[in-house]
Amino acid sequence: MVEGGGVGVGEIEFFFDVASSYSYLAAVAAPGVAEAAGLPVRWRPMLLGAVFKATGNASPALVPAKARWMMGDLAREAARAGVPFVFPARHFPPNSLLPMRALCAVAEGEVPRAARALFDAFWVRGGDVGAAAVVVEALDGAGFDGAAVVARASAQEVKDRLRANTDEAVARGAFGAPSFFLGDALYWGHDRMGALAEDARGARR
Amino acid sequence: MVEGGGVGVGEIEFFFDVASSYSYLAAVAAPGVAEAAGLPVRWRPMLLGAVFKATGNASPALVPAKARWMMGDLAREAARAGVPFVFPARHFPPNSLLPMRALCAVAEGEVPRAARALFDAFWVRGGDVGAAAVVVEALDGAGFDGAAVVARASAQEVKDRLRANTDEAVARGAFGAPSFFLGDALYWGHDRMGALAEDARGARR
Repeated sequence: MVEGGGVGVGEIEFFFDVASSYSYLAAVAAPGVAEAAGLPVRWRPMLLGAVFKATGNASPALVPAKARWMMGDLAREAARAGVPFVFPARHFPPNSLLPMRALCAVAEGEVPRAARALFDAFWVRGGDVGAAAVVVEALDGAGFDGAAVVARASAQEVKDRLRANTDEAVARGAFGAPSFFLGDALYWGHDRMGALAEDARGARR
Repeated sequence: MVEGGGVGVGEIEFFFDVASSYSYLAAVAAPGVAEAAGLPVRWRPMLLGAVFKATGNASPALVPAKARWMMGDLAREAARAGVPFVFPARHFPPNSLLPMRALCAVAEGEVPRAARALFDAFWVRGGDVGAAAVVVEALDGAGFDGAAVVARASAQEVKDRLRANTDEAVARGAFGAPSFFLGDALYWGHDRMGALAEDARGARR
């Protein structure tokens, strides 16, 4: 069932922020969902803090009991997915403005590889993903010229691209991350990716 | 993996409030989870509003964009589970004090049947589940003496039982509903019931 998605939806859109723990789990699972759905996933960087501000939402970590539960839930969900996860306590929450701008400074086809490098730098190795040195090192390690990407990240058109993605996500109904769209239908959370893949298959029939 | 649950966990505990939409989906799925887990599920009424107050949490419906998403998500999740669901817009949010006290006034073994009757009265038929007449009618329909149950609901020991359940849930880390416990490990949300069942099976090996 696709609500408002309709016939001819040709891709899944994946709005994310590297500062978001569940976006990391979604990023890891995205290739499998693309295969299950039979549709490409388009990775769209956005700034989660700006989404929270625009929608009146807030980080779930602000409720202490919820933050404690999330520590256990993230560990369990990562273990179920078979991926490494270490909560980056030293640098949480990070300022993700620079890394998210950097992801708007690489070619669209390169976004998944660059994003995975930044996700891993933070959610696996615990580096301060808001710091230029960490962004450069992570991108270098993934085969980019990290310093050149970071230099391009401060160009006005790159800044505008991140802002436009973020504004578009909010306008289409997003209030948190990860946010997937199949046409007009929003799927919030890595735990809705199974339903998303099933609905995408249904929409293509 | 059971964190702190350990060997010898003999049941799954299910803390819920009939005012909670995702608790309805969890209630519908609970028998299947008990079978998959190989453990009985003990249904434990609590007052969600008091949990929110005690933990600083709030209804997700207070963020407008999240409330809009929830309408679509609940419809999708109910359809996936193959159960009827109609958002009870006329009476949401209800005052669930009386129905939750009523669930503390029936024998423990009867709680699932009584709770399903109240869940259905609200989330399928849209009646005001906070009103005595609706509670009585729903319980009558499930084979109880509804008027007698509602009369017992105002006994001090029944009121105290609901308060004790609620306080216990908060003390053990709950901040919303549905909340499942496998020993000390908390699983929040109907979307964690699959993981819960798998972990319960693992813990019994």
